[in-house]
Amino acid sequence: MYSHADMTSNARSIRVGIIGATGYVGGELIRLLARHPSVDLVGLTGRDRHGDPVGVVHPHLATSGLTLDEELSDGVDAVFLALPHGAAAARVPGLLERGVTVIDQGPDFRLADPADYPRWYGFEHPHPDLLARAVYGLPELHRAELAAAAAARIAGTPALVGSPGCYPTATLLALAPLARAGLIADLVVDAKSGVSGAGREAKAEMLFAEVNESVRAYGIFDHRHTAEMEQELGRLTGGAAASRGIDFLPHLVPMTRGILSACHVRPTRAVPQAELDSLYAEAYEAEPFVSVVGAPPATKHVLGSNHARVHVRSDARTGRILAIGVIDNLVKGAAGQGVQAFNAVFGLPETTGLESLPVFP
Amino acid sequence: MYSHADMTSNARSIRVGIIGATGYVGGELIRLLARHPSVDLVGLTGRDRHGDPVGVVHPHLATSGLTLDEELSDGVDAVFLALPHGAAAARVPGLLERGVTVIDQGPDFRLADPADYPRWYGFEHPHPDLLARAVYGLPELHRAELAAAAAARIAGTPALVGSPGCYPTATLLALAPLARAGLIADLVVDAKSGVSGAGREAKAEMLFAEVNESVRAYGIFDHRHTAEMEQELGRLTGGAAASRGIDFLPHLVPMTRGILSACHVRPTRAVPQAELDSLYAEAYEAEPFVSVVGAPPATKHVLGSNHARVHVRSDARTGRILAIGVIDNLVKGAAGQGVQAFNAVFGLPETTGLESLPVFP
Amino acid sequence: MYSHADMTSNARSIRVGIIGATGYVGGELIRLLARHPSVDLVGLTGRDRHGDPVGVVHPHLATSGLTLDEELSDGVDAVFLALPHGAAAARVPGLLERGVTVIDQGPDFRLADPADYPRWYGFEHPHPDLLARAVYGLPELHRAELAAAAAARIAGTPALVGSPGCYPTATLLALAPLARAGLIADLVVDAKSGVSGAGREAKAEMLFAEVNESVRAYGIFDHRHTAEMEQELGRLTGGAAASRGIDFLPHLVPMTRGILSACHVRPTRAVPQAELDSLYAEAYEAEPFVSVVGAPPATKHVLGSNHARVHVRSDARTGRILAIGVIDNLVKGAAGQGVQAFNAVFGLPETTGLESLPVFP
Amino acid sequence: MYSHADMTSNARSIRVGIIGATGYVGGELIRLLARHPSVDLVGLTGRDRHGDPVGVVHPHLATSGLTLDEELSDGVDAVFLALPHGAAAARVPGLLERGVTVIDQGPDFRLADPADYPRWYGFEHPHPDLLARAVYGLPELHRAELAAAAAARIAGTPALVGSPGCYPTATLLALAPLARAGLIADLVVDAKSGVSGAGREAKAEMLFAEVNESVRAYGIFDHRHTAEMEQELGRLTGGAAASRGIDFLPHLVPMTRGILSACHVRPTRAVPQAELDSLYAEAYEAEPFVSVVGAPPATKHVLGSNHARVHVRSDARTGRILAIGVIDNLVKGAAGQGVQAFNAVFGLPETTGLESLPVFP
Repeated sequence: MYSHADMTSNARSIRVGIIGATGYVGGELIRLLARHPSVDLVGLTGRDRHGDPVGVVHPHLATSGLTLDEELSDGVDAVFLALPHGAAAARVPGLLERGVTVIDQGPDFRLADPADYPRWYGFEHPHPDLLARAVYGLPELHRAELAAAAAARIAGTPALVGSPGCYPTATLLALAPLARAGLIADLVVDAKSGVSGAGREAKAEMLFAEVNESVRAYGIFDHRHTAEMEQELGRLTGGAAASRGIDFLPHLVPMTRGILSACHVRPTRAVPQAELDSLYAEAYEAEPFVSVVGAPPATKHVLGSNHARVHVRSDARTGRILAIGVIDNLVKGAAGQGVQAFNAVFGLPETTGLESLPVFP
Repeated sequence: MYSHADMTSNARSIRVGIIGATGYVGGELIRLLARHPSVDLVGLTGRDRHGDPVGVVHPHLATSGLTLDEELSDGVDAVFLALPHGAAAARVPGLLERGVTVIDQGPDFRLADPADYPRWYGFEHPHPDLLARAVYGLPELHRAELAAAAAARIAGTPALVGSPGCYPTATLLALAPLARAGLIADLVVDAKSGVSGAGREAKAEMLFAEVNESVRAYGIFDHRHTAEMEQELGRLTGGAAASRGIDFLPHLVPMTRGILSACHVRPTRAVPQAELDSLYAEAYEAEPFVSVVGAPPATKHVLGSNHARVHVRSDARTGRILAIGVIDNLVKGAAGQGVQAFNAVFGLPETTGLESLPVFP
Repeated sequence: MYSHADMTSNARSIRVGIIGATGYVGGELIRLLARHPSVDLVGLTGRDRHGDPVGVVHPHLATSGLTLDEELSDGVDAVFLALPHGAAAARVPGLLERGVTVIDQGPDFRLADPADYPRWYGFEHPHPDLLARAVYGLPELHRAELAAAAAARIAGTPALVGSPGCYPTATLLALAPLARAGLIADLVVDAKSGVSGAGREAKAEMLFAEVNESVRAYGIFDHRHTAEMEQELGRLTGGAAASRGIDFLPHLVPMTRGILSACHVRPTRAVPQAELDSLYAEAYEAEPFVSVVGAPPATKHVLGSNHARVHVRSDARTGRILAIGVIDNLVKGAAGQGVQAFNAVFGLPETTGLESLPVFP
Repeated sequence: MYSHADMTSNARSIRVGIIGATGYVGGELIRLLARHPSVDLVGLTGRDRHGDPVGVVHPHLATSGLTLDEELSDGVDAVFLALPHGAAAARVPGLLERGVTVIDQGPDFRLADPADYPRWYGFEHPHPDLLARAVYGLPELHRAELAAAAAARIAGTPALVGSPGCYPTATLLALAPLARAGLIADLVVDAKSGVSGAGREAKAEMLFAEVNESVRAYGIFDHRHTAEMEQELGRLTGGAAASRGIDFLPHLVPMTRGILSACHVRPTRAVPQAELDSLYAEAYEAEPFVSVVGAPPATKHVLGSNHARVHVRSDARTGRILAIGVIDNLVKGAAGQGVQAFNAVFGLPETTGLESLPVFP
């Protein structure tokens, strides 16, 4: 059995497991959940290392006292999945049948249209029926669906959350107020990411010596996150044409964490700065994790935290709009966002376990 | 009055101020104390920016809701000082007279011998009488003194803590068991630090373009932290010769946070690895923030946390011993250590407010 | 008199001076010109340090044997200026009158329309008459003008070259074939730069601890290089509307050297990849410093060299075009480009002194 | 046949091949030799990619016009080997028999005592007879042997050079004057290296996300370069005890290139600074690639170049000496040093093809 060194187990704790605990997102889930006041972390599985202390794989977590296990024990209330695409789709039905709520950090339950899986991911989804049931876990845009899933969970139906990709999170938070207001006529999304998003697998192109002092674009015209962005922009705009065929370009920059998404908008009409300010203030003033800031935000302003920062500007000279979103790709762009949705689904304040401030410098 | 957005004020909270809140250590103190469950952060002062939200100086802390003030309000129970050397020495007597406990993050109250100040820091200490009263705030070595200061505080005498320097912290934790056992015959300390230790002042030599892709030594034979290390090693060894004239060499490496101190020891006799293992296990098994690890530790394993890692090795071929200590220079090497000592002085568990795990990768 | 340790002076050498030798561009000019086979580097001036060996300011150049001087000696054939904007405009007329050819690395002679100076740089140009005479020193686009300036120089009129900005260089090389072909209907330029472009002045925001592990946008809607890009795109398109009001957004990424300019083009008509390939091959096949590459280029592929790499892609799904340009901002984006234009003006092969290959990794 | 795009072939050129051209040292050899005025680069072999342009493996060298080959052609005069240890030992005898001079960048011909191979490298040397013939290719220490090898080469016996390791190069240049003078009583060598020394193989521990913002020691008490250092210090001291059992500790720091070796010396007697200064000035004043500098050198001061910098200091307080050496591990610590020895063996000035200045910032 898992013991957790410095937190007393609590009868009312939610029993949580992580499948895929050995990668970067898995490590980040452990970091957050091991300190979550309502969670009892009862099972961690990874590709191997069964029986090893978690510190063998994640040296920084050695003091957590946790151990890697071969299989999840019975009796978990919720499971986070941090698996390659396709792998989660196969495991989820069994978990749901056992009454386990699932937060999938991968893409297998993010897209509502089954046709998007062969198109963007190269596989036929084995359980297309579950796609309609899954909630796209961006709480700022889908709070009502999360609340409905929470109610259904209490009524006996475990929830299924497809936790958003890192690029869509930064991009959609930057664009949602404009999209809802129908102000986007044309859209270029140019994003920059730290390399932890590429995962922990040993690839020569991700060696320090190759990445340091270098920036490069990748995934030109075919990055899979494009599908999520177009789906969600379509939902926000009621399917307006501007949500289709967006020009999304990601870059790798020589840093570990952080995403900055620069959204270049040609608006449907001239939009003065004051109108933008109101639109964004209204959209986000009650959000605990989204701040609208007056100066261009740096990714380092949110490092290690679940915070997002959004900056929006109208240019009188050209009539264009720029909306920038920054997040920590492993927190608000992955594990933290998963925990936020988990909180919502279990009726906890969304900020539970996510209160820590960014680490700077 | 300061308000703290997301924590309810508590009648039994300790009212805490920070003088020198605008530098890196000041920012780190805010990060930790704003989430400390027994602290009410009631005053932040810096060089300027009075009345500004803290986010103007520390963008990452904008969501804390705190503001910079011109002067500390009356009625604070404790003050953290993060000031240049010499500045704290002038302010502390007034604070103590007002009954305020002081945690000084600078060097003004670390050295017991007044003659060390002109020798190493170039100024006569204005209040040499206070040096005897001050506790060297490395809890792992001075827990009894901190407990005595806590008792005295309850009895009406505010405490004065000289919080250790970053290099001495990493070095002393690596060496203390060897020193206490009288095993050090000769000592070379070769340390590597991230550049945040140099502070936030704009200096051309600290520009990214100068620091990146470069390592260099500095402070050759005259780094001020040498005095602290010799003082504490002297205390641990009862003044043995090996504690004097140590060879300390610090380096700047192209990273922001982290210190690794490699302590090369010529021992007084052959010491087998098993004896080292016992010595270190015994010294640290009950310490919440010090782990003895079996593989060479990386600074990144403790980033953002108050943890220290120690690794010790005996070499059969040469008869030498190597002891390595790693810490985050801004947490265990500065603000976190200050909070740990503060906890001790206020009778709280030392880990209070310092529970968060390291951020990796 | 300046001596140059390891190159024999040559009666037919071109005598060259550098004004503003103490910054990063100045250092890079020295690095290139000290090894240039037709150049005798006879004078270096900077803000101060007169009489000091160059190694005091540029430790990496200590072995060059050069010294900083208060004033340029008489008898120089050419001068490179690496000065803040406005400063060159004041010095150039005097130099030209003395018959000295000028390569200005700053912006004072890049823009043909005097009205652009108050608009973008905030000062009235003191010598608007010289703007018409100045050549925009991007040899790939203005080779004929450089040849004319070379001919005029032989006939007794010294040349004046306004060496292009770093962002315009990367952007214009990426876009020129499309612009000439009239294929650009709408344009977003999203660029990423290493921080050496910000110069060597000590600014807190450029400290390693602030820049590392962070990316941020700056100069939103008002970066001065926009003027150059619009001027040159206007020239290439015959003043088409698409060259006006471009959306240019620069970012700082945590690296020292390198610029990547991602040019998002909405074309005037569908352009198949094969047509793009022909267009770019034709434009650049004879260029010694521009390579059209089939995979997305990284800035590190050109580090330390005068090479540029261009990558262009057509997207069947969206009908959009992406053109990427990468350079080393201090070489092809500054000093190397200046030397290339200098070579052209002095009748040398453009590659003279610029043959070294990129440094990788 | 190999063609070299921008250098005219020359009847008197030395025909050179590289075996192991696809790694970092191989790439650096190409960078240097492709611009070497007396070299015709006639063959590059690597693990695979036969027939591919070199740019497929080394994108930064795409403009060199070179191609990878399956086998070296006949008729090469010299071969550089950049192979894992053990692999060169097998290939060298055949090359020597064909009259080919060999510069081995690996360790197989660095150690004179055959017993050192099983002890430090774990294999029996297959050709121990060749070890006596091989020259340890540190020209600053073995210039006479290189001259003898040059003479033998003209007389028909091809030369065999074991090019030194990166750590020994930085360390021996820092220590040689002290060692020769018999001043070393005890020695701790604490070195810091960029990660390119670990090679190009994909290993998870060398991923950017793992290396960045981290420093760690490795190879504690058993790094193979210890053997070279002890051999050469033994030669310099006539086998004094101080050359045996040195305490060598290497670290990885988050940068790509560069080694700094800090040599902590307990001297045999008090040595005033002035005596050190004379000793070092005398040792290195005629060396083209070694500068004795008065301020602590940074690795970045030599990046991309074959230069080494040495700094030596005596401490009156403790009686200790510190000697620091910095180099670019891939140039003076590998490929550049190989080219320097190659020049010596072929009767060229040692600086031929190595004139370029460091790249900074």
